Amino acid sequence: MPKIAKAKPIPKQALANNPSIYGVVLAGGSGTRFWPKSRLKTPKQLCALGGQKESMLEITLDRFAPLVAPARRMIVTHKEQLAATRKIAGKKCPVLLAEPQARNTAPALALAALAIEHMASKIHPGTEPIMVSMHADHVITDLVEFNAVVKRAIAVARSGWLTLLGVVPSYPETGYGYIERGQALHLRPFDSNGSAYEVAGFREKPDRMTAQGYVTSGRFLWNSGLFVFPVRSLIAELERTLPKDMKALRSCLKKSVATGKNPFNEAKLAKVYPRLTKISIDEAVLEKSQKIAVVDADFGWQDVGSWDALAQAFPSKNPNGNLIFGDAVTIDTENTTIDTDGPLIATIGLRDMVVVHHNGAILVCPKNRAQDVKKIVESLQATKRREYL
Amino acid sequence: MPKIAKAKPIPKQALANNPSIYGVVLAGGSGTRFWPKSRLKTPKQLCALGGQKESMLEITLDRFAPLVAPARRMIVTHKEQLAATRKIAGKKCPVLLAEPQARNTAPALALAALAIEHMASKIHPGTEPIMVSMHADHVITDLVEFNAVVKRAIAVARSGWLTLLGVVPSYPETGYGYIERGQALHLRPFDSNGSAYEVAGFREKPDRMTAQGYVTSGRFLWNSGLFVFPVRSLIAELERTLPKDMKALRSCLKKSVATGKNPFNEAKLAKVYPRLTKISIDEAVLEKSQKIAVVDADFGWQDVGSWDALAQAFPSKNPNGNLIFGDAVTIDTENTTIDTDGPLIATIGLRDMVVVHHNGAILVCPKNRAQDVKKIVESLQATKRREYL
Repeated sequence: MPKIAKAKPIPKQALANNPSIYGVVLAGGSGTRFWPKSRLKTPKQLCALGGQKESMLEITLDRFAPLVAPARRMIVTHKEQLAATRKIAGKKCPVLLAEPQARNTAPALALAALAIEHMASKIHPGTEPIMVSMHADHVITDLVEFNAVVKRAIAVARSGWLTLLGVVPSYPETGYGYIERGQALHLRPFDSNGSAYEVAGFREKPDRMTAQGYVTSGRFLWNSGLFVFPVRSLIAELERTLPKDMKALRSCLKKSVATGKNPFNEAKLAKVYPRLTKISIDEAVLEKSQKIAVVDADFGWQDVGSWDALAQAFPSKNPNGNLIFGDAVTIDTENTTIDTDGPLIATIGLRDMVVVHHNGAILVCPKNRAQDVKKIVESLQATKRREYL
Repeated sequence: MPKIAKAKPIPKQALANNPSIYGVVLAGGSGTRFWPKSRLKTPKQLCALGGQKESMLEITLDRFAPLVAPARRMIVTHKEQLAATRKIAGKKCPVLLAEPQARNTAPALALAALAIEHMASKIHPGTEPIMVSMHADHVITDLVEFNAVVKRAIAVARSGWLTLLGVVPSYPETGYGYIERGQALHLRPFDSNGSAYEVAGFREKPDRMTAQGYVTSGRFLWNSGLFVFPVRSLIAELERTLPKDMKALRSCLKKSVATGKNPFNEAKLAKVYPRLTKISIDEAVLEKSQKIAVVDADFGWQDVGSWDALAQAFPSKNPNGNLIFGDAVTIDTENTTIDTDGPLIATIGLRDMVVVHHNGAILVCPKNRAQDVKKIVESLQATKRREYL
């Protein structure tokens, strides 16, 4: 991969006022992994998790405050969740892009990229827009460091690199993909700490021993799904690998759009979407592109992927290691996650379990089976128990 | 111990019409062992367990149908539970004796014995009354055999023996007391099968190995708490061991009582009860008396003492051994008891667990910790969570 000798400097003005920076929140999700709390119409990102008062989506939007002004933010969500999403997004993010169907992350990010290109061409035709993309259901605890890392990534992206935020692993997680660092990119102003690297490769979710090796090597980073992309470069890559899809999506753009509005024709999207390739941005672009960079990120990131991950994202302050939200009585209970929206939960002799009551349904499972909650949801779908979906 | 050579024959007329047979149901209970289903005001015997439609008390009263007419039945219960008990008992048992406090089984049976003596002296002064005493929270599955055994026990009791129903153990239960059989009582009409025996002794709840030895020996029977007593003999024994208590209780009897009414003065009982000895009938009488007999009983008896015992009393018909009452979805779940009065219970990867929702509270514990449910209730008492008691 070619190296770039010089990075454009970080702009001096407050980043949020920089007209070339756009914020994208990917807020799809089928509401299965945090069942019974998350449901089809109120998936994880619309829930307040970990005893917080605000939904994960609202917290994600607030994270953009020092980085991107509301007018240049957008949420990509599912049509079914549009109303609930709009209620939370409010003035914090007026532009919502509704996918008629979930087609994985490449179509979602293509939609956002085209919308940004469209908006930028109207508002600031001279600028090269940069997209900062986050998932609506991740936890980030150190916001000062987060802002610093995003600024660094923006500088790298300005030099034309599709830039990933690679999280420094704190333990050998087997549920994440890993990014292997390549050569350091000697971009100013990073010459001294070399914290931007070419990407040498991607690794799928590893087994425990491999993950341990990754952590020990110091060369591997968690693929967080947090991206900072030069939008035209992203579109160029997508047009190379998914030319038909991009053409179809472009055809859905309205000719004239008021500022702060969804630029897509929804009826056209509904026709186009079922034919789009169902593919992740990783497969469609990142694993193929020659110009992918990674920036070290160490800001307490967690993809709260299931009930068992909650205890990693919100460490227990209880001496028994229990994580308790709501009314509970526990006896001889350790490392157990309890979450209830009303009924008292009483436990005896539990260890490493999940016990949840929400919206008239109870889930009980060992933490190491929390991934299988989707099987419960599948069973409820099969038996048409819509009241529980 | 002296042996009696001759038993009085079983009466020819239908037993239920025999004016000398009285039925007593002990229906106290603090409502802790089946929490959150059982509560202080609706203890276990007032609950329908094991997916049955009727409460355990109602099933117990119905069990008397071929044995004792309603007019000669009585329930000993706790004052707090009187209203709920009356609602269930209705015409099946008009006489309710309310204890102001729980003082264990000796005072409860003394109360019943004095009431029977009082009633019998008014109605049939010539007869020697016999009391058939059951607990309201036991399960008996083979009613034909039960009736046969009770008839046999009545014949033994008629010969003056305080007669216990000793259940032939089907496995080495460590939660029950055991009765050791002594010499066979050659009472007619039992000469041929010798199924009545003197009691050689009582054994407290044994450890697993001792229990296994008991079962193997064939000489030990579960102490079911099902008794058939000649009432005057019982009163004589009680007056010997608890003379002051008996005198105090007798002083509470009303002078004139309408048939089918509680013969005790409640205000007097309230004064007397706190001073009564808190003692079981086993300690007060059975372990001391010289004239205790036991009759083999093999009619599917279970003392459903806690959530884990439910699976023994109501064997699962599910291939995974799960016992499910109410709405549930189970994945990789075995030998687990699920009981819900509404919310869906979804489980993954559970084995030998109890998961219950009733009246706004959820219990989750391994079956082998079900005995500790009382600790939950104690904790709720300590924190004055009256809504859950």
